[in-house]
Amino acid sequence: MPRIDLDSIAERNSTGYPADHAGAVAGRWVRRLGPMAGLSDFGVSHVVLKPGAASSQRHWHEDEDEFLVMLAGIATLVEEDGRSLLRPGDMAAFPKGEPNGHHLVNESDSDCTFVVFGRPPTGDCHYPDIDLLWSGGIYRHKDGSSY
Amino acid sequence: MPRIDLDSIAERNSTGYPADHAGAVAGRWVRRLGPMAGLSDFGVSHVVLKPGAASSQRHWHEDEDEFLVMLAGIATLVEEDGRSLLRPGDMAAFPKGEPNGHHLVNESDSDCTFVVFGRPPTGDCHYPDIDLLWSGGIYRHKDGSSY
Repeated sequence: MPRIDLDSIAERNSTGYPADHAGAVAGRWVRRLGPMAGLSDFGVSHVVLKPGAASSQRHWHEDEDEFLVMLAGIATLVEEDGRSLLRPGDMAAFPKGEPNGHHLVNESDSDCTFVVFGRPPTGDCHYPDIDLLWSGGIYRHKDGSSY
Repeated sequence: MPRIDLDSIAERNSTGYPADHAGAVAGRWVRRLGPMAGLSDFGVSHVVLKPGAASSQRHWHEDEDEFLVMLAGIATLVEEDGRSLLRPGDMAAFPKGEPNGHHLVNESDSDCTFVVFGRPPTGDCHYPDIDLLWSGGIYRHKDGSSY
Protein backbone atom coordinates (compact mmCIF):
# COMPACT_ATOMS: atom_id res chain seq x y z
CA MET A 1 0.00 0.00 0.00
CA PRO A 2 1.72 3.20 -1.11
CA ARG A 3 -0.04 5.47 1.36
CA ILE A 4 2.04 6.02 4.50
CA ASP A 5 0.30 4.86 7.67
CA LEU A 6 2.10 6.88 10.33
CA ASP A 7 0.46 4.98 13.17
CA SER A 8 2.17 1.79 12.01
CA ILE A 9 5.65 3.31 12.23
CA ALA A 10 7.43 3.65 15.56
CA GLU A 11 8.61 7.09 16.60
CA ARG A 12 11.85 7.62 18.47
CA ASN A 13 13.46 10.54 20.24
CA SER A 14 16.92 9.02 20.49
CA THR A 15 20.03 10.84 19.30
CA GLY A 16 23.65 10.00 18.66
CA TYR A 17 24.80 13.39 19.96
CA PRO A 18 27.20 13.38 22.89
CA ALA A 19 25.37 13.96 26.17
CA ASP A 20 26.46 17.61 26.38
CA HIS A 21 24.54 18.38 23.19
CA ALA A 22 21.61 15.97 23.36
CA GLY A 23 19.16 18.04 25.41
CA ALA A 24 18.12 20.26 22.51
CA VAL A 25 16.60 17.31 20.63
CA ALA A 26 14.98 15.47 23.54
CA GLY A 27 11.59 16.68 22.32
CA ARG A 28 12.22 15.65 18.69
CA TRP A 29 10.18 12.59 17.66
CA VAL A 30 11.24 10.95 14.42
CA ARG A 31 9.65 8.32 12.21
CA ARG A 32 11.93 6.98 9.49
CA LEU A 33 9.62 6.40 6.54
CA GLY A 34 12.01 5.32 3.79
CA PRO A 35 12.97 1.81 4.87
CA MET A 36 9.41 1.00 5.99
CA ALA A 37 8.11 2.09 2.60
CA GLY A 38 10.77 0.14 0.70
CA LEU A 39 12.70 3.17 -0.53
CA SER A 40 16.48 3.21 -0.87
CA ASP A 41 17.22 6.13 -3.24
CA PHE A 42 16.83 8.68 -0.46
CA GLY A 43 15.79 8.92 3.16
CA VAL A 44 12.53 10.41 4.41
CA SER A 45 11.86 11.30 8.03
CA HIS A 46 8.63 12.54 9.58
CA VAL A 47 9.51 14.74 12.53
CA VAL A 48 7.42 16.19 15.34
CA LEU A 49 9.01 18.88 17.50
CA LYS A 50 7.50 19.42 20.91
CA PRO A 51 7.51 23.04 22.17
CA GLY A 52 11.10 24.01 22.91
CA ALA A 53 12.67 21.22 20.85
CA ALA A 54 15.11 21.63 17.99
CA SER A 55 15.38 19.52 14.83
CA SER A 56 19.13 19.18 15.43
CA GLN A 57 22.01 21.27 16.58
CA ARG A 58 22.62 24.01 14.02
CA HIS A 59 24.71 22.34 11.32
CA TRP A 60 25.64 22.06 7.67
CA HIS A 61 26.70 19.02 5.65
CA GLU A 62 29.64 18.88 3.30
CA ASP A 63 27.98 16.23 1.14
CA GLU A 64 24.28 15.91 1.89
CA ASP A 65 21.47 17.87 0.28
CA GLU A 66 18.48 18.34 2.57
CA PHE A 67 14.93 19.41 1.76
CA LEU A 68 12.04 19.88 4.16
CA VAL A 69 8.31 20.39 3.87
CA MET A 70 6.33 21.83 6.78
CA LEU A 71 3.15 19.91 7.52
CA ALA A 72 1.70 21.43 10.68
CA GLY A 73 2.39 24.10 13.28
CA ILE A 74 4.99 26.84 13.13
CA ALA A 75 8.76 26.38 13.27
CA THR A 76 11.53 28.95 13.50
CA LEU A 77 14.24 28.37 10.92
CA VAL A 78 17.55 29.57 12.32
CA GLU A 79 20.37 29.97 9.85
CA GLU A 80 23.65 31.82 9.60
CA ASP A 81 22.14 35.14 8.72
CA GLY A 82 18.89 35.19 10.61
CA ARG A 83 15.61 33.66 11.60
CA SER A 84 12.31 33.16 9.81
CA LEU A 85 9.05 31.32 10.42
CA LEU A 86 7.98 28.24 8.47
CA ARG A 87 4.27 27.41 8.25
CA PRO A 88 2.39 24.44 6.75
CA GLY A 89 3.17 24.15 3.05
CA ASP A 90 6.42 26.08 3.37
CA MET A 91 9.52 24.33 2.02
CA ALA A 92 13.25 24.87 2.48
CA ALA A 93 16.34 23.48 0.78
CA PHE A 94 19.87 23.16 2.17
CA PRO A 95 22.36 22.33 -0.56
CA LYS A 96 25.40 20.30 0.38
CA GLY A 97 28.62 22.20 0.92
CA GLU A 98 26.98 25.54 1.61
CA PRO A 99 28.33 26.70 5.00
CA ASN A 100 24.98 27.98 6.22
CA GLY A 101 24.39 26.26 9.54
CA HIS A 102 20.66 25.68 9.99
CA HIS A 103 18.08 24.02 12.18
CA LEU A 104 14.44 24.38 13.14
CA VAL A 105 13.37 25.30 16.65
CA ASN A 106 9.84 25.06 17.92
CA GLU A 107 9.36 28.34 19.76
CA SER A 108 5.57 28.00 19.74
CA ASP A 109 3.23 26.52 22.36
CA SER A 110 2.13 23.62 20.14
CA ASP A 111 3.76 20.74 18.32
CA CYS A 112 5.09 21.39 14.83
CA THR A 113 5.58 18.73 12.19
CA PHE A 114 7.68 18.47 9.05
CA VAL A 115 9.02 15.87 6.67
CA VAL A 116 12.68 15.98 5.63
CA PHE A 117 14.59 14.33 2.78
CA GLY A 118 18.26 13.51 2.39
CA ARG A 119 20.81 10.83 1.58
CA PRO A 120 23.25 9.35 4.07
CA PRO A 121 26.32 11.58 4.19
CA THR A 122 29.85 10.25 4.28
CA GLY A 123 31.55 13.64 4.56
CA ASP A 124 31.84 15.92 7.53
CA CYS A 125 29.03 17.76 9.27
CA HIS A 126 29.86 21.09 10.88
CA TYR A 127 28.25 22.64 13.97
CA PRO A 128 29.12 26.34 14.12
CA ASP A 129 27.66 27.06 17.58
CA ILE A 130 29.17 24.27 19.68
CA ASP A 131 32.29 22.17 20.14
CA LEU A 132 31.10 19.39 17.82
CA LEU A 133 32.16 17.95 14.48
CA TRP A 134 30.92 14.80 12.76
CA SER A 135 33.85 13.35 10.84
CA GLY A 136 34.95 9.86 9.87
CA GLY A 137 31.64 8.46 11.04
CA ILE A 138 31.83 9.65 14.64
CA TYR A 139 31.18 12.76 16.70
CA ARG A 140 34.33 14.65 17.66
CA HIS A 141 35.42 17.79 19.41
CA LYS A 142 36.40 20.53 16.98
CA ASP A 143 40.06 19.67 17.60
CA GLY A 144 39.36 16.22 16.13
CA SER A 145 39.46 14.25 19.37
CA SER A 146 36.61 11.83 19.87
CA TYR A 147 33.92 12.22 22.54
CA MET B 1 18.00 31.73 1.17
CA PRO B 2 16.89 28.19 2.02
CA ARG B 3 13.16 28.95 1.96
CA ILE B 4 11.59 28.12 -1.38
CA ASP B 5 9.97 31.12 -3.06
CA LEU B 6 7.50 29.47 -5.43
CA ASP B 7 6.65 32.74 -7.15
CA SER B 8 10.24 33.02 -8.36
CA ILE B 9 10.13 29.64 -10.10
CA ALA B 10 8.47 29.23 -13.50
CA GLU B 11 5.73 26.63 -13.82
CA ARG B 12 5.31 24.56 -16.96
CA ASN B 13 2.63 22.23 -18.25
CA SER B 14 4.74 20.68 -20.99
CA THR B 15 5.16 16.92 -21.39
CA GLY B 16 7.35 14.56 -23.34
CA TYR B 17 4.46 12.13 -23.84
CA PRO B 18 3.52 11.32 -27.43
CA ALA B 19 0.53 13.39 -28.56
CA ASP B 20 -1.91 10.47 -28.14
CA HIS B 21 -1.20 10.36 -24.42
CA ALA B 22 -0.51 14.02 -23.60
CA GLY B 23 -4.06 15.23 -22.95
CA ALA B 24 -4.28 13.74 -19.47
CA VAL B 25 -1.51 16.00 -18.18
CA ALA B 26 -2.43 19.24 -19.95
CA GLY B 27 -3.71 20.60 -16.62
CA ARG B 28 -0.58 19.56 -14.69
CA TRP B 29 1.59 22.55 -13.74
CA VAL B 30 5.08 21.70 -12.52
CA ARG B 31 7.80 23.71 -10.82
CA ARG B 32 11.15 21.95 -10.60
CA LEU B 33 12.59 23.02 -7.26
CA GLY B 34 15.79 21.00 -7.03
CA PRO B 35 18.05 22.76 -9.53
CA MET B 36 16.78 26.22 -8.50
CA ALA B 37 17.59 25.40 -4.87
CA GLY B 38 21.04 24.01 -5.71
CA LEU B 39 20.19 20.37 -4.97
CA SER B 40 21.59 17.46 -6.96
CA ASP B 41 21.11 14.39 -4.71
CA PHE B 42 17.46 14.08 -5.68
CA GLY B 43 14.77 15.88 -7.64
CA VAL B 44 11.87 17.79 -6.12
CA SER B 45 8.85 18.94 -8.08
CA HIS B 46 5.94 21.08 -6.89
CA VAL B 47 2.87 20.08 -8.86
CA VAL B 48 -0.57 21.67 -9.21
CA LEU B 49 -3.29 19.58 -10.84
CA LYS B 50 -6.23 21.49 -12.27
CA PRO B 51 -9.61 19.74 -11.98
CA GLY B 52 -9.59 16.78 -14.36
CA ALA B 53 -5.80 16.63 -14.72
CA ALA B 54 -3.58 13.64 -13.91
CA SER B 55 -0.07 13.68 -12.48
CA SER B 56 1.07 11.33 -15.26
CA GLN B 57 -0.21 8.34 -17.13
CA ARG B 58 -0.50 5.43 -14.71
CA HIS B 59 3.03 4.01 -14.53
CA TRP B 60 5.73 2.29 -12.50
CA HIS B 61 9.50 2.67 -12.66
CA GLU B 62 12.00 -0.16 -12.72
CA ASP B 63 14.66 1.93 -11.00
CA GLU B 64 13.23 5.08 -9.48
CA ASP B 65 11.83 5.44 -5.98
CA GLU B 66 9.13 8.09 -5.72
CA PHE B 67 7.65 9.80 -2.66
CA LEU B 68 4.92 12.42 -2.54
CA VAL B 69 3.51 14.76 0.06
CA MET B 70 0.05 16.30 -0.42
CA LEU B 71 -0.03 20.02 0.30
CA ALA B 72 -3.53 21.20 -0.66
CA GLY B 73 -6.79 19.96 -2.10
CA ILE B 74 -7.84 16.35 -2.63
CA ALA B 75 -6.36 13.93 -5.13
CA THR B 76 -7.44 10.44 -6.10
CA LEU B 77 -4.59 7.95 -6.00
CA VAL B 78 -5.22 5.28 -8.63
CA GLU B 79 -3.11 2.14 -8.36
CA GLU B 80 -3.22 -1.44 -9.52
CA ASP B 81 -5.65 -2.60 -6.90
CA GLY B 82 -7.87 0.36 -6.28
CA ARG B 83 -8.42 4.01 -5.58
CA SER B 84 -8.07 6.14 -2.47
CA LEU B 85 -8.16 9.83 -1.58
CA LEU B 86 -5.11 11.83 -0.55
CA ARG B 87 -5.59 14.95 1.56
CA PRO B 88 -3.14 17.62 2.83
CA GLY B 89 -0.47 15.99 4.97
CA ASP B 90 -0.99 12.57 3.42
CA MET B 91 2.12 10.92 1.99
CA ALA B 92 2.68 8.01 -0.39
CA ALA B 93 5.74 6.01 -1.44
CA PHE B 94 6.30 4.07 -4.66
CA PRO B 95 9.35 1.85 -4.43
CA LYS B 96 11.30 1.13 -7.60
CA GLY B 97 10.63 -2.19 -9.28
CA GLU B 98 7.23 -2.74 -7.71
CA PRO B 99 4.80 -3.32 -10.60
CA ASN B 100 2.04 -1.24 -9.09
CA GLY B 101 1.12 1.32 -11.74
CA HIS B 102 0.05 4.54 -10.05
CA HIS B 103 -0.89 8.14 -10.66
CA LEU B 104 -2.92 10.90 -9.07
CA VAL B 105 -6.04 12.28 -10.71
CA ASN B 106 -7.80 15.44 -9.61
CA GLU B 107 -11.46 14.44 -9.62
CA SER B 108 -12.43 17.41 -7.44
CA ASP B 109 -13.70 20.84 -8.46
CA SER B 110 -10.62 22.68 -7.12
CA ASP B 111 -6.88 22.61 -7.70
CA CYS B 112 -4.85 20.10 -5.74
CA THR B 113 -1.15 20.46 -4.96
CA PHE B 114 1.60 18.07 -3.98
CA VAL B 115 5.38 17.84 -3.91
CA VAL B 116 7.11 14.76 -5.28
CA PHE B 117 10.66 13.43 -4.87
CA GLY B 118 12.70 11.08 -7.06
CA ARG B 119 15.98 10.55 -8.84
CA PRO B 120 16.38 10.47 -12.62
CA PRO B 121 15.69 6.92 -13.80
CA THR B 122 17.78 5.17 -16.40
CA GLY B 123 15.72 1.98 -16.51
CA ASP B 124 12.36 1.36 -18.10
CA CYS B 125 9.03 2.91 -17.09
CA HIS B 126 5.91 0.84 -17.68
CA TYR B 127 2.41 2.10 -18.47
CA PRO B 128 -0.11 -0.70 -17.88
CA ASP B 129 -3.17 1.07 -19.32
CA ILE B 130 -1.89 2.33 -22.67
CA ASP B 131 0.41 1.44 -25.55
CA LEU B 132 3.43 3.22 -24.05
CA LEU B 133 6.83 2.21 -22.72
CA TRP B 134 9.75 4.43 -21.74
CA SER B 135 12.93 2.54 -22.56
CA GLY B 136 16.42 3.49 -23.66
CA GLY B 137 15.66 7.13 -22.99
CA ILE B 138 12.69 7.46 -25.36
CA TYR B 139 8.97 6.78 -25.48
CA ARG B 140 8.06 3.63 -27.42
CA HIS B 141 5.08 1.52 -28.32
CA LYS B 142 4.84 -1.62 -26.21
CA ASP B 143 6.33 -3.59 -29.13
CA GLY B 144 9.49 -1.48 -28.77
CA SER B 145 9.02 0.66 -31.87
CA SER B 146 9.55 4.37 -31.34
CA TYR B 147 6.80 6.97 -31.55
